[in-house]
Amino acid sequence: MKEMRKTAISERRGQQRVTDESWRTALTSIEPNKILLRGYPLDEVMGRLTFGETIYLLLMGECPTPGIGRLMEAMLVSFIDHGATPPSTLAARNTATTGAPLRACVAAGVLGFGRYHGGDIESCMAFLDAGLELVRRGATYRDAAIEIVDRWKETGDTLPGFGHRFHTRDPRAARLFQMALELEVEGSHIQMIRAVEMLLHTRQEDDKPSLPINIDGAIAAVCSDLGMPPTVANALFIISRVPGIVAQAQEERERQQPMRQIDPKVYVYDGPSQRRLPERRK
Amino acid sequence: MKEMRKTAISERRGQQRVTDESWRTALTSIEPNKILLRGYPLDEVMGRLTFGETIYLLLMGECPTPGIGRLMEAMLVSFIDHGATPPSTLAARNTATTGAPLRACVAAGVLGFGRYHGGDIESCMAFLDAGLELVRRGATYRDAAIEIVDRWKETGDTLPGFGHRFHTRDPRAARLFQMALELEVEGSHIQMIRAVEMLLHTRQEDDKPSLPINIDGAIAAVCSDLGMPPTVANALFIISRVPGIVAQAQEERERQQPMRQIDPKVYVYDGPSQRRLPERRK
Amino acid sequence: MKEMRKTAISERRGQQRVTDESWRTALTSIEPNKILLRGYPLDEVMGRLTFGETIYLLLMGECPTPGIGRLMEAMLVSFIDHGATPPSTLAARNTATTGAPLRACVAAGVLGFGRYHGGDIESCMAFLDAGLELVRRGATYRDAAIEIVDRWKETGDTLPGFGHRFHTRDPRAARLFQMALELEVEGSHIQMIRAVEMLLHTRQEDDKPSLPINIDGAIAAVCSDLGMPPTVANALFIISRVPGIVAQAQEERERQQPMRQIDPKVYVYDGPSQRRLPERRK
Amino acid sequence: MKEMRKTAISERRGQQRVTDESWRTALTSIEPNKILLRGYPLDEVMGRLTFGETIYLLLMGECPTPGIGRLMEAMLVSFIDHGATPPSTLAARNTATTGAPLRACVAAGVLGFGRYHGGDIESCMAFLDAGLELVRRGATYRDAAIEIVDRWKETGDTLPGFGHRFHTRDPRAARLFQMALELEVEGSHIQMIRAVEMLLHTRQEDDKPSLPINIDGAIAAVCSDLGMPPTVANALFIISRVPGIVAQAQEERERQQPMRQIDPKVYVYDGPSQRRLPERRK
Repeated sequence: MKEMRKTAISERRGQQRVTDESWRTALTSIEPNKILLRGYPLDEVMGRLTFGETIYLLLMGECPTPGIGRLMEAMLVSFIDHGATPPSTLAARNTATTGAPLRACVAAGVLGFGRYHGGDIESCMAFLDAGLELVRRGATYRDAAIEIVDRWKETGDTLPGFGHRFHTRDPRAARLFQMALELEVEGSHIQMIRAVEMLLHTRQEDDKPSLPINIDGAIAAVCSDLGMPPTVANALFIISRVPGIVAQAQEERERQQPMRQIDPKVYVYDGPSQRRLPERRK
Repeated sequence: MKEMRKTAISERRGQQRVTDESWRTALTSIEPNKILLRGYPLDEVMGRLTFGETIYLLLMGECPTPGIGRLMEAMLVSFIDHGATPPSTLAARNTATTGAPLRACVAAGVLGFGRYHGGDIESCMAFLDAGLELVRRGATYRDAAIEIVDRWKETGDTLPGFGHRFHTRDPRAARLFQMALELEVEGSHIQMIRAVEMLLHTRQEDDKPSLPINIDGAIAAVCSDLGMPPTVANALFIISRVPGIVAQAQEERERQQPMRQIDPKVYVYDGPSQRRLPERRK
Repeated sequence: MKEMRKTAISERRGQQRVTDESWRTALTSIEPNKILLRGYPLDEVMGRLTFGETIYLLLMGECPTPGIGRLMEAMLVSFIDHGATPPSTLAARNTATTGAPLRACVAAGVLGFGRYHGGDIESCMAFLDAGLELVRRGATYRDAAIEIVDRWKETGDTLPGFGHRFHTRDPRAARLFQMALELEVEGSHIQMIRAVEMLLHTRQEDDKPSLPINIDGAIAAVCSDLGMPPTVANALFIISRVPGIVAQAQEERERQQPMRQIDPKVYVYDGPSQRRLPERRK
Repeated sequence: MKEMRKTAISERRGQQRVTDESWRTALTSIEPNKILLRGYPLDEVMGRLTFGETIYLLLMGECPTPGIGRLMEAMLVSFIDHGATPPSTLAARNTATTGAPLRACVAAGVLGFGRYHGGDIESCMAFLDAGLELVRRGATYRDAAIEIVDRWKETGDTLPGFGHRFHTRDPRAARLFQMALELEVEGSHIQMIRAVEMLLHTRQEDDKPSLPINIDGAIAAVCSDLGMPPTVANALFIISRVPGIVAQAQEERERQQPMRQIDPKVYVYDGPSQRRLPERRK
């Protein structure tokens, strides 16, 4: 029996070159008894940076300023859960009802962050950038808004970052903009999305509700103003919803019968009524 | 209107009873322009609780105390990444190299949190509980440690929560215990795991390194002392590593050729050298 | 710049030993212009073995006899789809409605083959083996059936391989047994499961329907009689349902609106009415 | 506590209309003791159609002719496995080494059928269609080939359906075309891809190997000639490789240590040497 030291086999043509060279990573360095995250000893990061700040460090390469850190936390919190019935959550619950382990439910849920679910963040970033390109070339924010809205309408798609099936004013978006203002990180992307919102409000027909900025739009604008590329904004969306998927899948496992048929229209909320945060938190 | 309202069809026997009753959820309430997370308006939570604290709220139902909140952050940070080569990370990188979208890479990575990877937390919690049961019945911590270690050795399995292939002293575990002490949440589970560690150190043979408490063991002890059930501790492990999987998958997409063959033994860290946290963070 | 050839880093203790030795695979050999599947040139297998027979070859290592080949096809066909509402199918449809690509829907669907969904095959194989162990020690099939049924009832679980929420006589199980008889591969496991079925029928109370052998039970018995280990029977279940998941996910994408809420109780079948196979197929 | 009967909540705007109307499916009808697949009783299909033919029935809606059935089998067999090292297979093996269950390994593997892995089939179908459009407008196959190849080269991408990193002549493609010829289903798409192959051969520079038709290209041409839409061809690719992923993941679990580091470059094939199919199979 011949023992061939085989080289890599791909089923696809030339794009791939197999080399004996090593490959490189700049994220985390592992040595005996020492773990460096972007250069910082992980045990020193523990207790000094929050989870949200460490996520920023990992994705962007540097520690955030306190203001950016607070916005990171707020963005991650804003998306953490949206009830039992988004399709991604239902995919996770349908997996949970078969008795599958938690990690399988999380995987099924994450896979549902598709084109129609979270996909707006990236396209809204491009949409706002198109407007700001016009501003850089001399247009007012208002004229830029008119131009990009009209251009978008020709595609027949709905405006990315605007509108919500259920909320006519998304409380999360409003809060995020307020925080960006207070923390003095508001920039041109937030200005641009506000100009579009104002335009839509002006154009609004009497019988139709105005299209509000949704949380995807708010996060797109804030992330852009913080200098994050679309890939990082997209990553934040995935990271932020995982705890919600986890909680929903575990509730399914703990409170419901296995192998049930999940009708997303007949659920009842039986948790605590509206309440106020403990005093120290305000 | 009767469009054959079909009832559920399962491929399995009686366990399942289909009812027309509604089902219940206590996590998040959604009304127009109002999202309540465990009763708290989500927009009020934003900016007041950190992401880590909100994860605790979602999973445990109540706001954490500041001390527990800080430990939550530290635990989530401790697991955030462990370099490019854990099998779950390699599953995500191998998926990334095919050109798959980020969410697919995350799903593939999460699926690798299997029996041998993260599975120690749950079994370590049971292991420590067995010891504390003996303590409640009058044994000293030391005698309880002897009993449960000897019992476990009979199974032939390695002790859950102890030992690391690479680290002889896990810096994350040490830091977590130090924080638990400072924040005054140290309890009987931490005492129990320390008694086991001490015993192993005493029994240690000359030619073999001592088995240190690893991060799974530390998290098991801390979570137990915070009153978290194993399902929540298990959930924390999944949640905490998602940002690492995300960062590794994106680095693969951005820095490497598609369809490459990933050899986990020949990588080079080319990120920043060891550095100190900014002054304000200390 | 030093290029450290790092060795593997695991987050878990000693179980893992990293060696420089090569590892072995016995499935498929790849050389330039030659692909050998279990030793057979793949291009010679094409057109000579069916897909089902090649699956057997891949999993069991040898070509099946024609009779076993026909049973393989029948088992794979029997599980291919069970309508729009098993939880695994709903997980796939909920993923499809987000606009996710087909492979993500398939992954979400496959993850739902959990403890309560397909998990019976493996436990039924163990159940029947327990009975046959008694037979080998001198018991009649009937006495063995009494013993294992009573033993199982003590666990409080439902009998694996028996009962169906919807079918009182599973047409797939009946057909599979008929084929096993005709193809002369019926063996002691089929005899054992039939003895259990007969016992349940005898014991049946007047007001309760008899528990029929379900398709999981039939496949467990047939696979055991063909000498397949539980891992292979489990694999067949996954492989056989993938086309169903694919078809359901694609129908969701093609016939339904994106981001819809899928109520599993109000669907209507609008495909062809019952029809007969073309003459040549009989 | 108010019990609200909530309606569906989506996180996205108007695209979604929630109605009380039922939804429709044309694939499988489930009634007590009767399962109809595209109208045919599933128990009658068992033993009469092969798995491959039933896959065709499920995806295309009708029974295939015997010739198309044989080609289906051959296509499904051709892709069934390609050794231990395609990235999708490595994702599955890396998941398997963590101790994850088989279905998790399959999901991780399927997720790796990304843009660079299997993505050629769909783009090759469009590529060939573009050529046939020119033929319909009067061009010769040769002129159409020149036109579409030159047009494609401008994009900078490699030609879809051509070239293989390892094989200079793909034995699977050759066999598939031979079968299509013998079974008399060869049509204009196969003619078109052959015209492109001939053109590439003519243009070939002395120092470079010719780009052969690969299995993606062959399947694209055959599926198009059989009247299958790209979605179905794409589905066949996923379905066909699942048994390979299953076998590789199980071999990983059975023959290798858990938590090992998988180096895709140092594996050794230790299965049977090349052998001939049993006589009756020829």
